[in-house]
Amino acid sequence: MAIRYPNGRKYTPPNNTSVGQTTKKKKMDPTYSNRGKSLEDKIDETNQYYLSANIAVIHKKPVPVQIVKVEYPSRSAAVIREAYFRTPSTTDYNGVYKGHYIDFDAKETKNKTSFPLKNVHLHQVIHMRAAVEQGGICFLLVQFTTLERFFILPFDVLNQAWIGMDNGERKSIPFEVFEKEAIEVKEGYVPQLDYLKAITALLPI
Amino acid sequence: MAIRYPNGRKYTPPNNTSVGQTTKKKKMDPTYSNRGKSLEDKIDETNQYYLSANIAVIHKKPVPVQIVKVEYPSRSAAVIREAYFRTPSTTDYNGVYKGHYIDFDAKETKNKTSFPLKNVHLHQVIHMRAAVEQGGICFLLVQFTTLERFFILPFDVLNQAWIGMDNGERKSIPFEVFEKEAIEVKEGYVPQLDYLKAITALLPI
Repeated sequence: MAIRYPNGRKYTPPNNTSVGQTTKKKKMDPTYSNRGKSLEDKIDETNQYYLSANIAVIHKKPVPVQIVKVEYPSRSAAVIREAYFRTPSTTDYNGVYKGHYIDFDAKETKNKTSFPLKNVHLHQVIHMRAAVEQGGICFLLVQFTTLERFFILPFDVLNQAWIGMDNGERKSIPFEVFEKEAIEVKEGYVPQLDYLKAITALLPI
Repeated sequence: MAIRYPNGRKYTPPNNTSVGQTTKKKKMDPTYSNRGKSLEDKIDETNQYYLSANIAVIHKKPVPVQIVKVEYPSRSAAVIREAYFRTPSTTDYNGVYKGHYIDFDAKETKNKTSFPLKNVHLHQVIHMRAAVEQGGICFLLVQFTTLERFFILPFDVLNQAWIGMDNGERKSIPFEVFEKEAIEVKEGYVPQLDYLKAITALLPI
């Protein structure tokens, strides 16, 4: 039986994405190598740059797994032989930037006209609500892959759309809302995706 | 061949503690049930209390593993059949409290007279140095298990001792330093280990 969120949307366990993160093959193009990189790769490289340049300390959280059985072969590393994916209770990325707590998730969509809210999980919304209440800076970093455009969607905008969906309104955020209320992040060379520059508008004065 | 940190101390992969976290048996005493709980359990329960009472949003990070092989049995959950422990690049706990970025690790020692620095890994010190530089609040939550006493050791105190060790000074922090420069956390009922109350002294005004 399919498990559903209280709002009726189907619950999707994090298995596929989690495995995809570690095993997916990457398309590489020697001329436009950035274009073949996943959003996650771009964020990871940007975070490494932020760390080495003393700009911020932001890390991706590991995929949570429940470890059941481990073997210890002699002369080699321990091998996990049985483990299961667990549902994360937070977003994927967090850290600290100029004294501010930063917390976000990365999302990709092939859609051109809107961002479907089914890309977002209820536990992520609940987590970000709590973090915002504590003074954290929370957002989604959304890539419209077909359009090759990146946006910082402030949590407040996401939250309004989520509440609307719960009240029977539309289940996606129109692209025009991104152009008006989100902050575009232009791709660069180093760092590839300078999203912290883009969030300056979200920081308390 | 044993891998060693630049300071000559042996590198210990996180395997044992990681597996221990999921499989260790807990001593239970019906009268003093708290005493049988691990430090990690006490922190987890405290963090759950902080979250539900809207006091703070602090989570333990999952153990990082490199997933190599996953099976998808029909009608049941995906099973990880081959995976390896990776070395974490951060501390175990982080989150947000009243607008402050909080970052710490939990350590237990059976010693009564000092806290051996071999309990701390170089990557944890490097990570906390960077987070403090960004305005984060970093510390160790240390339990002297034999003495049944808990202390918040501010990162500055740890860092001074670490630098001293690198310069050939002692490889542990004397208990007297804890009594003078650390902040004691008294065990309670709800929450069990109110460490955020104890860090008030560390917060910028």
